[in-house]
Amino acid sequence: MPSKQTIDALRAFTAERDWAQFHSPENLAKSIAIEAGELLECFQWSAEFDKCEVEDELADVVTYCIHLAGVLGVDLDEIVLRKLEQTRTKYPVEKARGRSTKYTELEP
Amino acid sequence: MPSKQTIDALRAFTAERDWAQFHSPENLAKSIAIEAGELLECFQWSAEFDKCEVEDELADVVTYCIHLAGVLGVDLDEIVLRKLEQTRTKYPVEKARGRSTKYTELEP
Amino acid sequence: MPSKQTIDALRAFTAERDWAQFHSPENLAKSIAIEAGELLECFQWSAEFDKCEVEDELADVVTYCIHLAGVLGVDLDEIVLRKLEQTRTKYPVEKARGRSTKYTELEP
Amino acid sequence: MPSKQTIDALRAFTAERDWAQFHSPENLAKSIAIEAGELLECFQWSAEFDKCEVEDELADVVTYCIHLAGVLGVDLDEIVLRKLEQTRTKYPVEKARGRSTKYTELEP
Repeated sequence: MPSKQTIDALRAFTAERDWAQFHSPENLAKSIAIEAGELLECFQWSAEFDKCEVEDELADVVTYCIHLAGVLGVDLDEIVLRKLEQTRTKYPVEKARGRSTKYTELEP
Repeated sequence: MPSKQTIDALRAFTAERDWAQFHSPENLAKSIAIEAGELLECFQWSAEFDKCEVEDELADVVTYCIHLAGVLGVDLDEIVLRKLEQTRTKYPVEKARGRSTKYTELEP
Repeated sequence: MPSKQTIDALRAFTAERDWAQFHSPENLAKSIAIEAGELLECFQWSAEFDKCEVEDELADVVTYCIHLAGVLGVDLDEIVLRKLEQTRTKYPVEKARGRSTKYTELEP
Repeated sequence: MPSKQTIDALRAFTAERDWAQFHSPENLAKSIAIEAGELLECFQWSAEFDKCEVEDELADVVTYCIHLAGVLGVDLDEIVLRKLEQTRTKYPVEKARGRSTKYTELEP
């Protein structure tokens, strides 16, 4: 993840514009937060939303996530699955089922 | 994108805990912004960073992006590539090359 | 705004720890976004909230806003009132009354 | 904090537009995160910034902070000073001086 086609398209887009120079991990982390704010704006005053706008803003967040993974040299599937194993330990099924309680507040 | 294995693992994780009830698009957008803030915290006072921490926080952002794409019924590769076409029009190579200027401020 | 007592207390806190060196406008902007994410976390899965936690996280956001205003040499009351005048023009009472529509989408 | 004049001006602005209905604590927390993202955008690709833009975006963050404090019925000076006392304990001068280390990683 993402598909080789997506990675290649994003790399070509960046290379054509000579933008790799701006893609430091720090700048990409800022960009992810900025785009996450724009995604959130789709829901600012209500839970109702325009599906197209949400898709566009989600695409922007994910685009910068792919750039950051590229700069770090990591595979997104791999780190998502690795993190899932940690989360599994923090939220055992029997304690977390049907509850949105944070793991730090689940009874031991 | 992501791989079928990742999608299946995340779905199973959510189903086992009966957490789909919390995964409204609005709550997932909030979650993406929250995790984007934690990712940014890796760079709060400096551009230097701990690679493992950054990977873990990036994984959290992407995990919620995958959940949101699932709830919306869209494919992340597809929306990223579609958005890329729009961005291509906003940032023509000849005007944007080597510059981080926002498209609204590129000379016409 | 804030009161002279608050400004003095924050300045003394920073000076005692020799932390002004970390308080670049960029780092403070990152810090505001990070703390805004923590504030949002109080509402991640529901509109219900713990009042004390919300107050603590709101305090963190405002603390960094006061630091940023200090570094920029501006008064928060002044810039809030100045911005309010602009917003007043974007959202005329007769068009905006009772609606959360963004100004770019209000009918002309 | 803020000055009575600022509080009154913001309240009148909101009342004239009948917008209090949108100002739930949750919506205001989302709004603070959204505006914090716009503030961060002033620093997206560089530490250099346009002072006027930063002031405008900072004003937006603080405006929503004032609204949230109003809805919660708390005074911003009070919660900032209360939180400062907690932070003082987490970051004793002798351990934190000149270091940006997070309190969880300061040696005991």
